[in-house]
Amino acid sequence: MLNNDDFNLLNTLFPAWQQLTTKQQQIISQNASLIQVKKNNFVHTTKEGCSGILIIKKGQLRVYTLSEQGKDITFYRLNDGDISILSASCVIKDITFDIYIEALTDCELIQILPCAFAKVMNENIYLEAITYKLATKRLCTVTWAMQQMMFTSFDKRLAEFLLNESNTTNSNEINMTHEQIAKLMGSAREVVTRMLKYFSTEGYVEITRGKVKIINKQALEKL
Amino acid sequence: MLNNDDFNLLNTLFPAWQQLTTKQQQIISQNASLIQVKKNNFVHTTKEGCSGILIIKKGQLRVYTLSEQGKDITFYRLNDGDISILSASCVIKDITFDIYIEALTDCELIQILPCAFAKVMNENIYLEAITYKLATKRLCTVTWAMQQMMFTSFDKRLAEFLLNESNTTNSNEINMTHEQIAKLMGSAREVVTRMLKYFSTEGYVEITRGKVKIINKQALEKL
Repeated sequence: MLNNDDFNLLNTLFPAWQQLTTKQQQIISQNASLIQVKKNNFVHTTKEGCSGILIIKKGQLRVYTLSEQGKDITFYRLNDGDISILSASCVIKDITFDIYIEALTDCELIQILPCAFAKVMNENIYLEAITYKLATKRLCTVTWAMQQMMFTSFDKRLAEFLLNESNTTNSNEINMTHEQIAKLMGSAREVVTRMLKYFSTEGYVEITRGKVKIINKQALEKL
Repeated sequence: MLNNDDFNLLNTLFPAWQQLTTKQQQIISQNASLIQVKKNNFVHTTKEGCSGILIIKKGQLRVYTLSEQGKDITFYRLNDGDISILSASCVIKDITFDIYIEALTDCELIQILPCAFAKVMNENIYLEAITYKLATKRLCTVTWAMQQMMFTSFDKRLAEFLLNESNTTNSNEINMTHEQIAKLMGSAREVVTRMLKYFSTEGYVEITRGKVKIINKQALEKL
């Protein structure tokens, strides 16, 4: 059960909350609980089955896939207020591919049990529509990420990554180690370091300890 | 405009038709037309923009993606009665990845203009729910196909392809040339021929002109 503050969070973050009946709202809140996940721990793995719907109260999650050989592709990241839907493979039954979710920071999550969510979704067309709309959005991002990985050469991908980070944080400085960049890009540290050195020689970026500064944005965009 | 027969087809094939108002049904049918596409022609390419919703009256479509270098991945195929939803990138606005659709046979398609479809979908929650549910289903298949392509070795993929074809047609004989198999798998003829020869040496299949016969199903399943 949730405390009052967390119940109010459902009110603002749960999809289509206003379109649920009082009874349906009760079912959801009675089957919701606050969970804490420490940084670097798994929130969801395919092998452990369905983790239900997760609302991120605080923290950052990384959603990715992993091959048998350990190759790793980041699909997307989720932040405060976002909803994790692809973790609910028993609600969205077409999810047959492998998916992993890890905590990039210490996280507080509201977890809604899949059986309760599925029951209300089957009764309420508004919740059904918004759930599948969100799933479509996430899966389009997944498809785009996989296309990038398969088809785009690494210099382009790294440039896009740096420009994206710079846009998101509204700063030319990206406060990440090469190791962190490599992990988020599904690459190896050596590969990132090599390409960043190349970018630096070309005058695109400046590299200092744990930081990458964009000097020539236009050049990166042209890659 | 559609003739009476094709209008009746909408009645059975259009998603959530019974939940549309008479007015909404009129909007859809007034913006629907029957189009003929010859075998091997494009039905949709990313560059040409949004092709709307396509209902396959007759024929087979292949939905795939293509890299700048011409590498090709089959996402799925659509048959009589199926609905093509990922061709409507202006209805499902999150579709930002490249997608191509070609006719594998001569096709008859009912095309619904995207603006009309979007208008009705925005008014009608049932159509919205079923549209995003279908998009989710297709995108899960896309994700699965890309995972196979990236992570599974080719012998496994070819075995899965042959077993799938055999299941679909309910026959041990797959009536396709190596060229056709290669195209559908997003591979090259030489690679398919090489692997089929290997399968044949191992006693998994028998190869004759334009045909592959499965001899040892269990062995293929074990790969």
